[in-house]
Amino acid sequence: MVDAFDEKGVNFERAVPDVYGDAHPKGLLKTIQEDGEPLKQLSSQHIISSDQFDQDVLLQLFRLAAKFEANPRRFRTPLQGKILISAFYEPSTRTRLSFESAWHRLGGDIMSITDRSTTGIAKGESLSDVGEMFNNYGDCVVLRDNYESSVHEMMRSLRIPIINAGNGLDEHPTQALADLYTILKWKPELVATGDDKADPIRIGVVGVPNQMRTVRSLLKMFAIFPETMEEVVVICEDDPGAIFDTGQLEQLTQAGLNVRVTSDLDEELPKLDVVYINAIAWKGDGFESYGARYVLDSKSPLKKDAIVLHPLARGEELGVDLDGTPHNWYFSQARGAVFLRMALLTCMCERIERVMDVWM
Amino acid sequence: MVDAFDEKGVNFERAVPDVYGDAHPKGLLKTIQEDGEPLKQLSSQHIISSDQFDQDVLLQLFRLAAKFEANPRRFRTPLQGKILISAFYEPSTRTRLSFESAWHRLGGDIMSITDRSTTGIAKGESLSDVGEMFNNYGDCVVLRDNYESSVHEMMRSLRIPIINAGNGLDEHPTQALADLYTILKWKPELVATGDDKADPIRIGVVGVPNQMRTVRSLLKMFAIFPETMEEVVVICEDDPGAIFDTGQLEQLTQAGLNVRVTSDLDEELPKLDVVYINAIAWKGDGFESYGARYVLDSKSPLKKDAIVLHPLARGEELGVDLDGTPHNWYFSQARGAVFLRMALLTCMCERIERVMDVWM
Amino acid sequence: MVDAFDEKGVNFERAVPDVYGDAHPKGLLKTIQEDGEPLKQLSSQHIISSDQFDQDVLLQLFRLAAKFEANPRRFRTPLQGKILISAFYEPSTRTRLSFESAWHRLGGDIMSITDRSTTGIAKGESLSDVGEMFNNYGDCVVLRDNYESSVHEMMRSLRIPIINAGNGLDEHPTQALADLYTILKWKPELVATGDDKADPIRIGVVGVPNQMRTVRSLLKMFAIFPETMEEVVVICEDDPGAIFDTGQLEQLTQAGLNVRVTSDLDEELPKLDVVYINAIAWKGDGFESYGARYVLDSKSPLKKDAIVLHPLARGEELGVDLDGTPHNWYFSQARGAVFLRMALLTCMCERIERVMDVWM
Repeated sequence: MVDAFDEKGVNFERAVPDVYGDAHPKGLLKTIQEDGEPLKQLSSQHIISSDQFDQDVLLQLFRLAAKFEANPRRFRTPLQGKILISAFYEPSTRTRLSFESAWHRLGGDIMSITDRSTTGIAKGESLSDVGEMFNNYGDCVVLRDNYESSVHEMMRSLRIPIINAGNGLDEHPTQALADLYTILKWKPELVATGDDKADPIRIGVVGVPNQMRTVRSLLKMFAIFPETMEEVVVICEDDPGAIFDTGQLEQLTQAGLNVRVTSDLDEELPKLDVVYINAIAWKGDGFESYGARYVLDSKSPLKKDAIVLHPLARGEELGVDLDGTPHNWYFSQARGAVFLRMALLTCMCERIERVMDVWM
Repeated sequence: MVDAFDEKGVNFERAVPDVYGDAHPKGLLKTIQEDGEPLKQLSSQHIISSDQFDQDVLLQLFRLAAKFEANPRRFRTPLQGKILISAFYEPSTRTRLSFESAWHRLGGDIMSITDRSTTGIAKGESLSDVGEMFNNYGDCVVLRDNYESSVHEMMRSLRIPIINAGNGLDEHPTQALADLYTILKWKPELVATGDDKADPIRIGVVGVPNQMRTVRSLLKMFAIFPETMEEVVVICEDDPGAIFDTGQLEQLTQAGLNVRVTSDLDEELPKLDVVYINAIAWKGDGFESYGARYVLDSKSPLKKDAIVLHPLARGEELGVDLDGTPHNWYFSQARGAVFLRMALLTCMCERIERVMDVWM
Repeated sequence: MVDAFDEKGVNFERAVPDVYGDAHPKGLLKTIQEDGEPLKQLSSQHIISSDQFDQDVLLQLFRLAAKFEANPRRFRTPLQGKILISAFYEPSTRTRLSFESAWHRLGGDIMSITDRSTTGIAKGESLSDVGEMFNNYGDCVVLRDNYESSVHEMMRSLRIPIINAGNGLDEHPTQALADLYTILKWKPELVATGDDKADPIRIGVVGVPNQMRTVRSLLKMFAIFPETMEEVVVICEDDPGAIFDTGQLEQLTQAGLNVRVTSDLDEELPKLDVVYINAIAWKGDGFESYGARYVLDSKSPLKKDAIVLHPLARGEELGVDLDGTPHNWYFSQARGAVFLRMALLTCMCERIERVMDVWM
């Protein structure tokens, strides 16, 4: 936290570094060699689910995000002349601004829809017709909707790529990308080759896998790199039999991920290298907070070098007294999410040749 | 309609061409010779009503729209440095995004007002004062309002040009421009000279002329080219004496347009070259749908080469089973509307010299 | 007021000049010599209160605003690549568009939040966390909120500069800057040196100093140039003991400002050189209008050369029959506010070297 604020100036000097690991994008840049080939798969691709990714695409995507994050002012114009349709039918500011900031940083233009009730949908228009309309107006769509099926319906007529920014309880793939990107910024040796390779880590996930799209997408993302994870411990108070949808856990274990469920947070914490916590679940037409049940703060028995992640916004479940400690990687997570989205959008909108050092 | 969608890619190959007549802007380009002189009239002009146009201005405006549509990426910067005030006091997404896309494509900047209740008008401010304010903030205004008089009140103090994007039940001139532009893209020979000139066509309009501003503006637009139309058949279930405002029908017939009213759609269809259908009428503070009464779908007895137009959004009145047929020109209509608006805005904002091949 | 409007064209010729004193920015340019040194103080500064300014900074800021106003099309790119977060949690159009227009004119990009209920704040997120989020997304924040403390809470974590665009009943410093800028455009000799120096003026302020943030900020701004003011007369019907907060009047008089309170407007008017009137006070969750009690119109006994200021929007308190008279400087005030904000934003975002003739 900042020292007593000074009304006469912006605080550039802070008692503790504000975003841990600013130098770590460089670590990731050194660990992964640039190779544009896997990124070609992303050209004009719809990004709907964590299922769509493999290790090669992810490593290059994270490397590109790290390149943006290490040189925030270098790439100004990749998306010049491109229009983003930012359609947030479910309330959001954080994710919407994250995408819009990414698009602006790349030199593109934006049209926003933030109120479902002013759209043709309010007049009974089908989502397929809305997609057909978007084809004429923009070059890319970002959609958040509390109905799981909306993005799929819209895709039936879309000829421009779309990113699912959250569809009901289903998925939120770019958040999961940002989360895994943060872990690899923190410990790029997890994906190093040879003697540099780090030992697998133990990750705790405080949340409800079938009630939180962030958690659903994140667990799938972990299952793409199972060899880097000793174990993923889901920490949840609910009945273990009720917290996974049919087939959800099996998909993870079949990919080689070790998943264990427990309800005792403080017992697990001393063994966890990464602690991910989320407390808000979308319940139909409102938010339900699970925050009161689990709390992470400076009194929690965290491992000395453990890092904490949270997709934000946070409530009582994540204490502000952790903000000034080295455990705080949730601010780095929020910061990196913009660069991750810049990397993804550049690839999707077929402008990647403008940012690669070598492109064929 | 698209084949089963592929989550891993955007569909560029479709079972049927998605927008019929993509090549037809070129037909219009050949038929009309470029002449910038008539377009000078549009400089700094308010666009309020279809009444303002004559044949010369329309032909050149449509030609310019066709030039944009045939070369979507060629003109990037005509409106650079210009600010659009996009004021949609009545709910809309389609028209708002159509204008905003057009303005972005031309390199300009946009400020949006989508909620009347946050404006000074909520504090009791007069529209004349709002216009005076807009003079200081932007270079062009697009206004949609459910009160017919709003655009006229605002014009009293505006020194920047304004486009009426729909004022109550009164007019929606740019929609009518887009509609007629589509008809001439389909059959440019209607305005050819000499031996190439096509025979007049028969147009059906399914709607209520004094309850739908799209229809009101469109009929006036037809009356500018009466020699191209054998007959305009208004298809409506209401009492013929109640569907025109005082003087509305007379204005059309005095201009030389042949107008007939009937209620039997399927009887008229086999004789119609163009079928225009709209089902939504704005009724004070909500939409009333006329959709259930008339339906156009693949079972309708359409002439083989007939085209169907609809301003969209559509409901049950226009069947999705028509989307994949050659009758579908409503998607081309939506696509062309952006280019039509690009052409109009370029002329209004005095940047036309940047897009003409020859300009004096 | 404009002559009968002409539907076929924008009115450039008006019966009376529309904004008095268009040439006066040039008067201010001649009176004040350009000196960039005082403006360095504004780099990355939060602008929260009129208290932050002194004479040197103000004179150079006003000179820069005059430079922009005298050459509206000259400076296109100072803020290129910079992103503004325009957060209006309290309803506004006028101030929001004024800032957004200023930012667009300088070549920057904008992200708008106009609905508090869609933000994380609705999910219980702290304003400090919102500030941390904004650090990642933009380069500058403009905030209006009906809670006085919001801007202070947000500043605790912000590392990018913020402008207070109105915080409850507290302050609205950029409005006061625009108001004083207008007075100096009208009579730059007030700040001349030597023989050119004008006699001090008498200013009337119709409003309630502790209920209107515009008035609170403006009186403080006057207190920075007490030698230019013979007297400031607060005209208010309320009990004089109830219209100032504790210490509010003392701060003004200690700075050397002569302040008198009266309730009789028409008695004061013949002696006033500048009349400022505002009638809207924000009362918790709605506007309360004081308009009915005082009225300024063409029948008011104004001094021949007196000028009238009003932050707008106006109601019955300011008659439209004054609009076409030389007393009307409220339109010039609105116009100049955009240029004033352009000057301030350029300095805050460290781009001032792009607009100074001499910069070291």
